[in-house]
Amino acid sequence: MDLNADLGEGFGRWSLGDDRALIDIVTSANVACGFHAGDPETMRRTCELAAARGVAVGAHVGYRDLNGFGRRFVDVDAATLTAEVLYQLGGLDACARAAGTRVAYVKPHGALYNALVEHEAQADAVVDAVRAYDPALPVLGMPGAVWLKRAEVAGLPVRHEAFADRAYSPRGTLLDRRLPGAVLHDPHEVAARCVALAVDGQVRAVDGRLLRIRADSICVHGDTPGAVGVARAVREALTGAGVALRPFAGGLEPAAA
Amino acid sequence: MDLNADLGEGFGRWSLGDDRALIDIVTSANVACGFHAGDPETMRRTCELAAARGVAVGAHVGYRDLNGFGRRFVDVDAATLTAEVLYQLGGLDACARAAGTRVAYVKPHGALYNALVEHEAQADAVVDAVRAYDPALPVLGMPGAVWLKRAEVAGLPVRHEAFADRAYSPRGTLLDRRLPGAVLHDPHEVAARCVALAVDGQVRAVDGRLLRIRADSICVHGDTPGAVGVARAVREALTGAGVALRPFAGGLEPAAA
Amino acid sequence: MDLNADLGEGFGRWSLGDDRALIDIVTSANVACGFHAGDPETMRRTCELAAARGVAVGAHVGYRDLNGFGRRFVDVDAATLTAEVLYQLGGLDACARAAGTRVAYVKPHGALYNALVEHEAQADAVVDAVRAYDPALPVLGMPGAVWLKRAEVAGLPVRHEAFADRAYSPRGTLLDRRLPGAVLHDPHEVAARCVALAVDGQVRAVDGRLLRIRADSICVHGDTPGAVGVARAVREALTGAGVALRPFAGGLEPAAA
Amino acid sequence: MDLNADLGEGFGRWSLGDDRALIDIVTSANVACGFHAGDPETMRRTCELAAARGVAVGAHVGYRDLNGFGRRFVDVDAATLTAEVLYQLGGLDACARAAGTRVAYVKPHGALYNALVEHEAQADAVVDAVRAYDPALPVLGMPGAVWLKRAEVAGLPVRHEAFADRAYSPRGTLLDRRLPGAVLHDPHEVAARCVALAVDGQVRAVDGRLLRIRADSICVHGDTPGAVGVARAVREALTGAGVALRPFAGGLEPAAA
Repeated sequence: MDLNADLGEGFGRWSLGDDRALIDIVTSANVACGFHAGDPETMRRTCELAAARGVAVGAHVGYRDLNGFGRRFVDVDAATLTAEVLYQLGGLDACARAAGTRVAYVKPHGALYNALVEHEAQADAVVDAVRAYDPALPVLGMPGAVWLKRAEVAGLPVRHEAFADRAYSPRGTLLDRRLPGAVLHDPHEVAARCVALAVDGQVRAVDGRLLRIRADSICVHGDTPGAVGVARAVREALTGAGVALRPFAGGLEPAAA
Repeated sequence: MDLNADLGEGFGRWSLGDDRALIDIVTSANVACGFHAGDPETMRRTCELAAARGVAVGAHVGYRDLNGFGRRFVDVDAATLTAEVLYQLGGLDACARAAGTRVAYVKPHGALYNALVEHEAQADAVVDAVRAYDPALPVLGMPGAVWLKRAEVAGLPVRHEAFADRAYSPRGTLLDRRLPGAVLHDPHEVAARCVALAVDGQVRAVDGRLLRIRADSICVHGDTPGAVGVARAVREALTGAGVALRPFAGGLEPAAA
Repeated sequence: MDLNADLGEGFGRWSLGDDRALIDIVTSANVACGFHAGDPETMRRTCELAAARGVAVGAHVGYRDLNGFGRRFVDVDAATLTAEVLYQLGGLDACARAAGTRVAYVKPHGALYNALVEHEAQADAVVDAVRAYDPALPVLGMPGAVWLKRAEVAGLPVRHEAFADRAYSPRGTLLDRRLPGAVLHDPHEVAARCVALAVDGQVRAVDGRLLRIRADSICVHGDTPGAVGVARAVREALTGAGVALRPFAGGLEPAAA
Repeated sequence: MDLNADLGEGFGRWSLGDDRALIDIVTSANVACGFHAGDPETMRRTCELAAARGVAVGAHVGYRDLNGFGRRFVDVDAATLTAEVLYQLGGLDACARAAGTRVAYVKPHGALYNALVEHEAQADAVVDAVRAYDPALPVLGMPGAVWLKRAEVAGLPVRHEAFADRAYSPRGTLLDRRLPGAVLHDPHEVAARCVALAVDGQVRAVDGRLLRIRADSICVHGDTPGAVGVARAVREALTGAGVALRPFAGGLEPAAA
């Protein structure tokens, strides 16, 4: 199993999240590419952190919206979005190469992640960008998202993620995070769910039903002190249950080895 | 001989210069990389223009300063500048790859170009970035610039350019452009100087002295209607004098061929 | 009658439209405020142009989206949008004061203009900003737009504009500009429509029906050479028909007088 | 005596410093205006914090350099800088008015603060902006800075600040902060120096000599947990010594009173 989290979400003087703690927990780092967060220096340093531990570098591509942290839908047209994703991919890959690694997968961020679940033109735009950059580059997202269907048709390797700390509806979708109980905070509960997911491929929905979920990676968070604790509990529980943790993509060795 | 000019200097809704005219004149295009000008869509389209004609794509890297068009010195520190140049290189190269070509050389823009003549820390920073990205990537600049000396020591291929429309001092430096006569506007005179440069390796300084100038490329401009006329005259005069025009770097065939 | 057009739409090195021609045609200038276009220096210069001719300065407020020129919907939340409009208003007003004039009205730009026709939260956000800045500041928009209704309830002076070069549906709305015939290019036809509008308060819809339209201002364009010609024809026809042209807001005298 | 500190230095998702602690310590808040930090929403919220406590709002104007936090010299020309300062002043003042207060003074930030000590063209540019905005608006800076001399000639009210936690050379200038002992960290020592400054108008230089320092305000910091503790110790020592703390400018009453 793979654990992924968002890293490198600072910008210039500003930092966010505890990257130094997270980098020892995850096996894949979604690195912001300068459009919603992340400046080149932060990107390069984050890639160095990842490379030194054998953590895979993912391109966390987003809308051009530093002020909104990429969390607002932008009605950007397809040609612009394709070029913007290409640029972010290339920019991060250059930083990764300078750090002795490479971009190993692509995961959209924030409002773009949400838009790609249904927005066909933007879905195609992102798929076009990844394919033009490297048709062997895996893409990571929610099962059922329209952009993953397009990615599959386009021949890109498609990988799915589950969310460690989120409640699932009986249909297998995430509960709206504004609903009570949508976000789980208890480290033990979250860790136990992740073990069930990794070992049995199952997650319990809010109505008690057991769902079959295919996950190549589990997404954890690190932008609050509590979140780092939950992420650490997930890692320890998985390791304790005999689940091997390794990047779903890339297969890189620690640079320091 | 190679002719280079700045292209892709628009941003979003704004355009600048007559790229469609210039692309048929030059053999190398210095493409803005999004920091002083150029958005990803413009970058991609400019790379497509270049690729279709066998024109080499150069990374025209600049300070992060859209509002100042990269024409103001910014006292950025070395680690930041290295990462910013890496990012610009990678971003443009991704656009170039999507257009069927690659970044073939690096030329700094505007105030960065000027700073690198003497500023040692920024010179080292840019050289570090190019070497980290691709130690075989040629760099293009003014003879004597400190960054080219560092590039040479670092093992990067170093190429020199001369300026078609600028007066030279007896020491072989450019006359300050604010001095009378520093910029030449007569197409015939400029063209004749370029032929002398290409055929004899000579340029006449303002005091009448003949200077030996080694140039791998001649820089022409295209941001005014008159400038395009001058650039065209240079091309025609060189061709008429039997000077073969081809990119100094890359050796790409036209994509459409 | 008042004629309004967008001015000051450059950014740094980039310019757009023929401000020097337009400023002699219009009586109100919608000046970009730095978020979708316009940098402070351009804003100040545009205010000086306007002040010297007694042209009213309007705050052309937009989304924070330089790359998209404010033409893409951004799903910004209300508190952010209110503060952004306040900031744009204050920033332009400072430039206007330095030029001896003041912001005389507010008109949203591009995608924000379109969103405010129906988007209630963003409509309230913009109205809140204007009221917080100056409850006596007029707002200018399309009849029927939800934000103008909210502005009316909030006690802001509400003014309406008609479009010189656009075809109207029988319901009094603009024809989608992608439909054939939606944009009128013939200077004589456009000018004649404007005279009918100013003198009779009428415009002929695409089905031939005469609509009653209340307009305090007519919007003309200037971003193409043809557009300037149309705008000039409108001005001459109105003047020739005895229609007095003056700003709908402000009542400023030319600063140079 | 007045205590000033930098507040509102976040941007979008990113925050910096402990504004809620600082606002109860200082009497003047230097509020970032969107160019080096601070987005309109943060600016408005910071003005509301200040207004509710009778803390004066100062315009902390900076270079257009979010990525460098305004800490890098930018060789911007005078006309551009004047317009940028005007725009920042107007933008913040609009936020202040919406919060029931007004901009009460101007203090440059970071690299601009440092440049204005000697850079004559930039000094004139900033003075021109303040005078054009409001010739009665006080400016705050280091004694001896060239821009304060120009401000005095221009008739602006000039106020001086001293630094609570910095060592002074025998000439009354600050010791370079990279030198050992240049920054003081002991709350008791810093507080005692501030009392001597406020009561006796004296500060002890590094060579033991007592300097006469005229200060209308003392600058404290809040961007580290330790800094907030030092600032609090300064406030308590001054109050304990019977020094009344109030804004040097504005004379506003708490909005909530």
